[in-house]
Amino acid sequence: MEIEKYIAERASAVNKALPLHISRLKDAQPRLAEAMTYSLAAGGKRLRPVLMGAAYEIFGGKASDILPAACALEMVHTYSLVHDDLPAMDDDDLRRGRPTSHKVYGEALAILAGDALLTDAFTVLLTSRYPARVTKPALVKAASVLSSRAGAKGMVSGQAADLQAEGYLDGRLTPARRRSGLELLSYIHLHKTADLITAAVEMGAALADAPDKDFRALSSFGREIGLCFQVADDILDVVGDKKKLGKSGSDARNRKLTFASLLGVDEARLKAAELLSRALSRLSAVNGRAVPKRALAEIAGFVLRREN
Amino acid sequence: MEIEKYIAERASAVNKALPLHISRLKDAQPRLAEAMTYSLAAGGKRLRPVLMGAAYEIFGGKASDILPAACALEMVHTYSLVHDDLPAMDDDDLRRGRPTSHKVYGEALAILAGDALLTDAFTVLLTSRYPARVTKPALVKAASVLSSRAGAKGMVSGQAADLQAEGYLDGRLTPARRRSGLELLSYIHLHKTADLITAAVEMGAALADAPDKDFRALSSFGREIGLCFQVADDILDVVGDKKKLGKSGSDARNRKLTFASLLGVDEARLKAAELLSRALSRLSAVNGRAVPKRALAEIAGFVLRREN
Repeated sequence: MEIEKYIAERASAVNKALPLHISRLKDAQPRLAEAMTYSLAAGGKRLRPVLMGAAYEIFGGKASDILPAACALEMVHTYSLVHDDLPAMDDDDLRRGRPTSHKVYGEALAILAGDALLTDAFTVLLTSRYPARVTKPALVKAASVLSSRAGAKGMVSGQAADLQAEGYLDGRLTPARRRSGLELLSYIHLHKTADLITAAVEMGAALADAPDKDFRALSSFGREIGLCFQVADDILDVVGDKKKLGKSGSDARNRKLTFASLLGVDEARLKAAELLSRALSRLSAVNGRAVPKRALAEIAGFVLRREN
Repeated sequence: MEIEKYIAERASAVNKALPLHISRLKDAQPRLAEAMTYSLAAGGKRLRPVLMGAAYEIFGGKASDILPAACALEMVHTYSLVHDDLPAMDDDDLRRGRPTSHKVYGEALAILAGDALLTDAFTVLLTSRYPARVTKPALVKAASVLSSRAGAKGMVSGQAADLQAEGYLDGRLTPARRRSGLELLSYIHLHKTADLITAAVEMGAALADAPDKDFRALSSFGREIGLCFQVADDILDVVGDKKKLGKSGSDARNRKLTFASLLGVDEARLKAAELLSRALSRLSAVNGRAVPKRALAEIAGFVLRREN
């Protein structure tokens, strides 16, 4: 499991850097800073930062050059989980086996901690030190990618569509409803999950000032593995051991739309394999160093295989 | 009332531009885009964008050069109102005489609309067209100011402290509790209100690539008028006609800490006048064009006099 070791090592650098960025937010209200740190410390594979680092390395730099940008993206991902778990949203009590932010800090502070994680992701991205090879125009492009992929063109619209999909499976599943369900679900997956995975590789490429053609190829790669990641998550939600995953299985409880519930587990698996294959073909079109390209390919494969 | 006309004219340009920025967010979930537009259209004096334009003009440009940046700041201000009104926060039903976002769209979508307004403020700031005089390094600095002033070093911590202050006046107001109440209140005002007003003039100066000395003087000016604005608001909350203001007076209902409730209205008025005078002395130290400097001074005076 070489790739797992690779991911774990790179994730560890992110885990060390994240709390430092929060402690540098001088004059922050102590309880707010604590709530931000609590959710950042909840762990996870740090897949997005790892993807960003590998994408950046394709063009010659070292992932450590852009560690603050990788932390910024993880802060945005973490904010999205905090808000997603809120009582008004998915109303989840557990996240990665620990009580969710609003369970520990109350709803108001959880909303604010999410707001601050999102806002200060831009502070961390834009005010940190980088080597000279990371230029100001590259920084502007990376920040534009982050806000576009995370905002109303991207992730937040995925969340909004997800709300709309609640209870979709309560009615009888006619062929027409299955079709429109698949359409809605594709929109949700594309935006709720794939957009931030896409942002990871796009930000890596932007910070490396990659040629447009390679930026676009990596962008497509990100989109396909993001969708693959979400389909795998859907499957896991049906067949996985809830305890192992550390979630309380609210998707099933709310009878939410998933690929597994609409198409069945077998067809969802086929869909995931197809997405992976498309992703790898996009990746092969990128010009650059072979080792980080192979790492990206292996991460993609790992995402599909993962059981936890 | 020349200055009121000045503010109204400049605000009108912002009012025209804001919905266009939302409509440019392609692929946004329709109901989400509607909720964003609803809150942006609620009006207000657009004081922050107007301040930004005037600060920018001190250094030779035209406010219209940086209209997207002014819109971005107003989007951040609007998000803060949407989240502040939520049931878990101030639980307000009315804002500027209209039902609050969560009353119209439900709590979940109101949270998401706030999230998207905040995120896409950076999209609007960073991906819009500017004249060549607005450089990429200036844009990075402006975006850094925005995220720092709005995040956990700034506005969000003001909100978090505000939560903490709830019910402060329920106990007996001993001299010691009055003192610590004033301290807490100063922290709240500085961050909850003054930080975003400060961001307005700092962003104007940053986008104009103003000398450091002038940036700092304008920053202090922003801080003082921001505090002045909030003290005036506190007074208004006690003496003002609730209906005229279009708020339901929840501050009084929750017995929140205000300068007026801690010091009485007369002393609060003195405090506001003192802040204005300090602000004007900071402003006079800035090197640049006289007309926009005078506009900033008059806006500050107007803020103190305002009744609505």
